[in-house]
Amino acid sequence: MTIPRTLEWIGELPGVLRLLDQTRLPTEVCYRDCETVDELVVAIRALAVRGAPAIGCAAAYGVCLGLRTEVDRDEAAFFAALNDCVQQLAASRPTAVNLFWALERMRRTAESQRGRLPPRGILERLLQEARAIEAEDRAMCRAIGRHGAALLKDGDGVLTHCNAGGLATSDFGTALAVIFQANKDGKQLHVWVDETRPLLQGARLTAWELMAREVPCTLICDNMAAQVMRSGRLQAVVVGADRIAANGDVANKIGTYGVAVLAAAHGVPFYVAAPSSTFDLSLDSGDRIPIEQRAAEEITHGFGRQTAPSGVTVYNPAFDVTPASLVRGMVYEHGVISPVNAATLAAALGSRERRADVV
Amino acid sequence: MTIPRTLEWIGELPGVLRLLDQTRLPTEVCYRDCETVDELVVAIRALAVRGAPAIGCAAAYGVCLGLRTEVDRDEAAFFAALNDCVQQLAASRPTAVNLFWALERMRRTAESQRGRLPPRGILERLLQEARAIEAEDRAMCRAIGRHGAALLKDGDGVLTHCNAGGLATSDFGTALAVIFQANKDGKQLHVWVDETRPLLQGARLTAWELMAREVPCTLICDNMAAQVMRSGRLQAVVVGADRIAANGDVANKIGTYGVAVLAAAHGVPFYVAAPSSTFDLSLDSGDRIPIEQRAAEEITHGFGRQTAPSGVTVYNPAFDVTPASLVRGMVYEHGVISPVNAATLAAALGSRERRADVV
Repeated sequence: MTIPRTLEWIGELPGVLRLLDQTRLPTEVCYRDCETVDELVVAIRALAVRGAPAIGCAAAYGVCLGLRTEVDRDEAAFFAALNDCVQQLAASRPTAVNLFWALERMRRTAESQRGRLPPRGILERLLQEARAIEAEDRAMCRAIGRHGAALLKDGDGVLTHCNAGGLATSDFGTALAVIFQANKDGKQLHVWVDETRPLLQGARLTAWELMAREVPCTLICDNMAAQVMRSGRLQAVVVGADRIAANGDVANKIGTYGVAVLAAAHGVPFYVAAPSSTFDLSLDSGDRIPIEQRAAEEITHGFGRQTAPSGVTVYNPAFDVTPASLVRGMVYEHGVISPVNAATLAAALGSRERRADVV
Repeated sequence: MTIPRTLEWIGELPGVLRLLDQTRLPTEVCYRDCETVDELVVAIRALAVRGAPAIGCAAAYGVCLGLRTEVDRDEAAFFAALNDCVQQLAASRPTAVNLFWALERMRRTAESQRGRLPPRGILERLLQEARAIEAEDRAMCRAIGRHGAALLKDGDGVLTHCNAGGLATSDFGTALAVIFQANKDGKQLHVWVDETRPLLQGARLTAWELMAREVPCTLICDNMAAQVMRSGRLQAVVVGADRIAANGDVANKIGTYGVAVLAAAHGVPFYVAAPSSTFDLSLDSGDRIPIEQRAAEEITHGFGRQTAPSGVTVYNPAFDVTPASLVRGMVYEHGVISPVNAATLAAALGSRERRADVV
């Protein structure tokens, strides 16, 4: 089975951003073409494109979408439009820091050419930058796979939560890259896939990617992971991340924290795989990471049918924070950080520090 | 809101067993009338009636359904028919021991009248016994509520998993009886309701019962419980049970074990509420409790829509086993057993020991 591209810039300028519509998987493979920032923001909010690295790439291209109609304006108007679309994209989702990182990188790129190139030339330079971000993302995924594969042994049972695969990135993934690479290296793995309520990214996306790449896997409900651990069938947990604070606390899909506590209770090592663009060293701890709250209907009408009483109160945080103390190691594109604490993170990432709060 | 009856024997003999169809809640309140053992077995397997105590009551009435057409036969044929319907009902679900307990009690009742009453008289006696089992179940629920309410404090946040309410019993419930009674006693509680994948008994049934009785509650996905605990909003967990071994190990709805581990990690006391008919002192540990495996479609096609790739491998155990060491106390109809171990269980239940393996 050929794996469709998560996102693709079609043509040159003006161009469109084609997204694989992840809300329709696994039963339908179809695409959503975005020509405006508005359309992209709707697609990001609806999770047609999701996963921290993929959102970063999409947002970078989104800046190009937003400036397509602004190239004949004067420089001040062009930069005002840039600001507007950066603000609009930054407001699409709050937790994944890659979004802010990519937008900031695009803004700096534009600023570096201010006064040197006309608006059309700056936009051409911005499209190059978005393509570079995507290319780096692809290379990053492969590097994470190479560094992380050594953590898994032949015969291991490995649990993952949500989707940190090719669909969450430009290609190949973060947590799943570790699994894919170990599998390519000839290790026999069995992957336990948390379905990941409420939106079932595990069932819909991760199981689909693993089957497409012929990695043996078993789908479970989130509440079955503890039983799988107790039965001795799990030797490692690998998940992605949406934002990692300077002390190593990890925001990731809701349910990740519970998996980490259960893994610790069963002596199963818990690993996080994420690119350096997911680290936010401007936040000293995970307590400061903003957590998106999503609509009650995701839980009460999850499958197109009402499955809870009308009017019930619902708590639906999209993410939780796993303290660094529960993380055995972090795989990033330059290696594995272990133990995980403020000093080891600073040593590994200090020179590449990104500040999310500058957007 | 009036709460409909979980089950009700309509008329005298021959009579029918009317079940509230729990597969249709919370959006529809409708009933399923069973006139034969076949119909009841189908209803039990489909979870139209579920919950260990309710299954026990339903099975007792089921024996009466099975013998309605046998009263004009000779004694040997009548007892052969009794055996057949006991075997058929016993094969409906494997884990909840109340089923076997109720069937054994019905068989002993019939045997005690063998040679003393004609088949019609024995059947009349059996209907009395089924009614007694239901009446005792109602009294048991109220007693569990009274004993357990003292475990909850004013202002507590309380988590429950699956449904151990009036819908899992003849009326009022086991775990929910504890909450209902504490609420009636004037304690302000807030109940966190695990939706309980795959069949959403928490979302569909527990939230509905709590709202009907005006107990404040919030629905969450199972994977959010850890986050609620970490945020300090939970002071207790109370769940029901499907079978409890002699050492205090508890089989209950899948996901219960994970909740117990998380509760221990957060210093939250974990309580089990169940009648003595749920204890199976013939099994020395929970490892010997048979665990029902259910169809993959419950996970892949949860609510009428396919939400996982075609052909995916699924693991779908209906129950898990929580070791006694994680249980702070067990509420039964005669008090609270704490600490929980083989000695305290034997002391509390020894004189009432039931053997499940005699059916």
